[in-house]
Amino acid sequence: MGRQKMYLEKMAQALHLQNKLLRQSLAECLGTLILVMFGCGAVAQHELSKGSHAIFLTVNFAFGFGATLGILVCGQVSGGHLNPAVTFALCLLGRERWRKFPMYFLFQTIGAFLGAGIIFAMYYDALSDYPDSFNMTATTTTAGIFATYPGNHLTLFNGFFDQLIGTAALIVCILAIVDPYNNPIPQGLEAFTVGFVVLVIGLSMGFNSGYAVNPARDFGPRLFTAMAGWGGEVFTARGGWFLVPIFVPFLGTIVGVIVYQFMVGFHVEVEARLRKSREQENVRLTNVNTNNSKEATKEVH
Amino acid sequence: MGRQKMYLEKMAQALHLQNKLLRQSLAECLGTLILVMFGCGAVAQHELSKGSHAIFLTVNFAFGFGATLGILVCGQVSGGHLNPAVTFALCLLGRERWRKFPMYFLFQTIGAFLGAGIIFAMYYDALSDYPDSFNMTATTTTAGIFATYPGNHLTLFNGFFDQLIGTAALIVCILAIVDPYNNPIPQGLEAFTVGFVVLVIGLSMGFNSGYAVNPARDFGPRLFTAMAGWGGEVFTARGGWFLVPIFVPFLGTIVGVIVYQFMVGFHVEVEARLRKSREQENVRLTNVNTNNSKEATKEVH
Amino acid sequence: MGRQKMYLEKMAQALHLQNKLLRQSLAECLGTLILVMFGCGAVAQHELSKGSHAIFLTVNFAFGFGATLGILVCGQVSGGHLNPAVTFALCLLGRERWRKFPMYFLFQTIGAFLGAGIIFAMYYDALSDYPDSFNMTATTTTAGIFATYPGNHLTLFNGFFDQLIGTAALIVCILAIVDPYNNPIPQGLEAFTVGFVVLVIGLSMGFNSGYAVNPARDFGPRLFTAMAGWGGEVFTARGGWFLVPIFVPFLGTIVGVIVYQFMVGFHVEVEARLRKSREQENVRLTNVNTNNSKEATKEVH
Amino acid sequence: MGRQKMYLEKMAQALHLQNKLLRQSLAECLGTLILVMFGCGAVAQHELSKGSHAIFLTVNFAFGFGATLGILVCGQVSGGHLNPAVTFALCLLGRERWRKFPMYFLFQTIGAFLGAGIIFAMYYDALSDYPDSFNMTATTTTAGIFATYPGNHLTLFNGFFDQLIGTAALIVCILAIVDPYNNPIPQGLEAFTVGFVVLVIGLSMGFNSGYAVNPARDFGPRLFTAMAGWGGEVFTARGGWFLVPIFVPFLGTIVGVIVYQFMVGFHVEVEARLRKSREQENVRLTNVNTNNSKEATKEVH
Repeated sequence: MGRQKMYLEKMAQALHLQNKLLRQSLAECLGTLILVMFGCGAVAQHELSKGSHAIFLTVNFAFGFGATLGILVCGQVSGGHLNPAVTFALCLLGRERWRKFPMYFLFQTIGAFLGAGIIFAMYYDALSDYPDSFNMTATTTTAGIFATYPGNHLTLFNGFFDQLIGTAALIVCILAIVDPYNNPIPQGLEAFTVGFVVLVIGLSMGFNSGYAVNPARDFGPRLFTAMAGWGGEVFTARGGWFLVPIFVPFLGTIVGVIVYQFMVGFHVEVEARLRKSREQENVRLTNVNTNNSKEATKEVH
Repeated sequence: MGRQKMYLEKMAQALHLQNKLLRQSLAECLGTLILVMFGCGAVAQHELSKGSHAIFLTVNFAFGFGATLGILVCGQVSGGHLNPAVTFALCLLGRERWRKFPMYFLFQTIGAFLGAGIIFAMYYDALSDYPDSFNMTATTTTAGIFATYPGNHLTLFNGFFDQLIGTAALIVCILAIVDPYNNPIPQGLEAFTVGFVVLVIGLSMGFNSGYAVNPARDFGPRLFTAMAGWGGEVFTARGGWFLVPIFVPFLGTIVGVIVYQFMVGFHVEVEARLRKSREQENVRLTNVNTNNSKEATKEVH
Repeated sequence: MGRQKMYLEKMAQALHLQNKLLRQSLAECLGTLILVMFGCGAVAQHELSKGSHAIFLTVNFAFGFGATLGILVCGQVSGGHLNPAVTFALCLLGRERWRKFPMYFLFQTIGAFLGAGIIFAMYYDALSDYPDSFNMTATTTTAGIFATYPGNHLTLFNGFFDQLIGTAALIVCILAIVDPYNNPIPQGLEAFTVGFVVLVIGLSMGFNSGYAVNPARDFGPRLFTAMAGWGGEVFTARGGWFLVPIFVPFLGTIVGVIVYQFMVGFHVEVEARLRKSREQENVRLTNVNTNNSKEATKEVH
Repeated sequence: MGRQKMYLEKMAQALHLQNKLLRQSLAECLGTLILVMFGCGAVAQHELSKGSHAIFLTVNFAFGFGATLGILVCGQVSGGHLNPAVTFALCLLGRERWRKFPMYFLFQTIGAFLGAGIIFAMYYDALSDYPDSFNMTATTTTAGIFATYPGNHLTLFNGFFDQLIGTAALIVCILAIVDPYNNPIPQGLEAFTVGFVVLVIGLSMGFNSGYAVNPARDFGPRLFTAMAGWGGEVFTARGGWFLVPIFVPFLGTIVGVIVYQFMVGFHVEVEARLRKSREQENVRLTNVNTNNSKEATKEVH
């Protein structure tokens, strides 16, 4: 066993990436892969089993707890964003550097692409069995397993608003969870709480267009379907819908950041700073007093 | 990035509210907005998708975990009541000042109103598609997405009892969770536990009239529906039902406070005080003993 | 507010019960009331809404998380057994005094009786609407909302085994959770974990006869139904089935205690004791060594 | 009570197993028994109630939380693997000794066999009532309650890939949870998190062949069915499918170990070691500096 351990350590040394941002991006890629693999896997199970092995709630659970697991896998290395909108929100608030944003976006999209690929391979037989499987013009299409498409009732204008609200709700909740001045949950439970946020968004905002609220989660798998047989129609379908879940979530992020910061965030931050400066004031006053009696303080400290 | 941070800090300073009660009320408003947005969103998804994207359980989950998320967002600032009945219970027990009650009630109702408005905007297309959408006399009406209406089997008398029991059950559980002398759960998990309380009440007390048990959650959205197109019938429907979820929860709160305090609360409180006074007694006795041997204690301390 | 607090403290003093066992029994009564109120409430919602507001899973959730909430409310005072079989198991292992057993059994049964009464009152209108509601000979009977009745496929012999296995499984899991030598979960999460145990038992052992696995939970509500209009047939139905969930859980408890203690419990206990005695041995050896150099140790301690 | 305790302690001493590996294997046996009892029990409830008492989601919950409870019962003694693939992964990474592997595999299989036996006994009447119960050639067969069989759409090649991906996903998540250099969750919540992993795999990878991803969980119950009346056809059915969930999970484990270690594991490990060596470097530098001022440091330490 000593030998095995030595061999493993050598391998770790050899494979270790010196570039921190690359290590983080790689972790982010794996995390998003896990989110999309479990999430889209549940949609596939729902669609392909025609409801015998799933209900819509199971899809919500899979995306929610898939987010939890993705964050657990990569969180310590990369922060576990899994979503360019989350990276964007943290950059806006100065908590992550802006140069992280394009790298994370890229690797999150690659992870989502690979996650979709794994589910495609896993359910290849079931997809082949499905009637009109790769036909985008069929009324029931399997492309919706991987990327989101709006319901028939949805206009583009309402779809815009749908993604705006969904992402804003996501960002408000996530900001509250990770706000360093507002610590509502015990250390280490952030991943579970974010999972519940994703679950609840799916329960209440999933009917219009399947709650993408994540440009990487939607674009990566959509690109995969375009290459895997569904063709370019995945981009042209429904009046170019694919642009909505790519761009609108960033607008929703801005709304979410503003709402949270104006209604809660700025206030807890200023309060925390006031409390701190008052404490320092007290310390300084104490010091002034004690300087007059130096001997005493020396012994105490 | 240094510049960005400085700008954000300045903005925080400029926007900071000096009035603590106003800050708290604003946080409470956002928390209740989140609860109602997710909860009523899930009812909308259930109703508008005609069951394809939801079952009654998903509504229960959304209200339960929506309460959890609402509390997480505002809890550190305002306590996270989200419900005038909870504020009332804490005032009754002398844990919150009475002057908080009207402010919280108002802002919780505003938050619920806004939450309903967001869901209305989000599902506007789906609501328009729904047959007889804004017609209160139709047998299936979409007004039930926002405010509660009693089932056809329910008399007003039984409805009174329904809200009384529901709120009493809610208050008994919440008092146990936040009782300073009865600390059953680790710090920071209160929000999750309250979420489970709301979930379980929905699972077992949701059939009669949709378990409002919260005057703000019911009245705010009802007012919104009155203004958004359903008209004044939302108040006159079912013999003025809307008064029941406004006033009865406060009676239920009184029952819940009495039941919890008489069966558990007063006993743990008196026990805790007895234990404390016994400990102080011991300390005093020890001090008497040690005064006789001052040198020894000096070195120890 | 000072006056209100003084008044509340005086009331607490006046109502405080001197007898510890009585205080504990009262808490146990409230805890079991909560379990049965939420659990049977969910069965009522399932039965009376004819499936529109519930599925079998919601009943499982309600009994599981109802157990969690019941334990949270009374756990600090009474230990939160909510089930005479659990009290029996802890008495068998010498962790509770035997004189607690009859008192807890009685008050748990009273709590279950009251919980059933609350649900009866809450759903009185819906029960009255239900066809053939109070008729035990009707094929679909509402008596099953409160107490358990075996499925038509079940013989008494298999029913015996059903309750035996169910309670044994419950006790094995609960013993692992509360075993002082086997501490698998963080302090304060016991109530949640027990809730999951009850949930899982309902998911996998609920089809035969509705998983009573708790003499108080079954007998209290059954007595209530006998008095509330269903009559003495609740005892004579299905060949005196009511005796099975009263007596067999205690046999199952014995099986569960034996299985857990023989396969895990005794081993972790002896290991813990061996580790402790080895540590004391080390301390003694250290002391012998250090006695030779007294000055050094004095300064260290 | 003193007497009872003495008697219990004596019994513990008499039954205590000196062999640590045997103690661990016994615990592992009980843990796997619990997993299979609850998991297969839920499948039985789903199948035998023809959907009235279960949906596919309840099966997912039962396997997920059954894994949680199994780990809680045996985790402190044996680590709570419940799955030879998990033991294999930890051996591959040098965290468990290889000689544990065959013993754990054997006792996990025995536990799964016994768990299946308990469910068979519990649902004996319901199984007897079921049409064509013990007939492997019938289209709907009850053998699927205990062991997994591929769906009709599944080729052997895709089935191979199904088990490979499923186990790899399981192992990636479990490695992240138990990685000593990547500590994403609070101590004591590992069992719950693994439960969520199993749940999510069931939600998204359960349609092809029922997500065995565990050689013991599949082979033990299959052997039981062969002996209990379904006959040797449980092995010959679907072209010898039974070999897939025995052997492929180990290949999936290798894939999972590689993916996790290359994308996250090795990096956090090397980083942790670099951080440690840097700290030691700092300490050494500090020591050099302070050696020049020995008096000062003496007083500080």
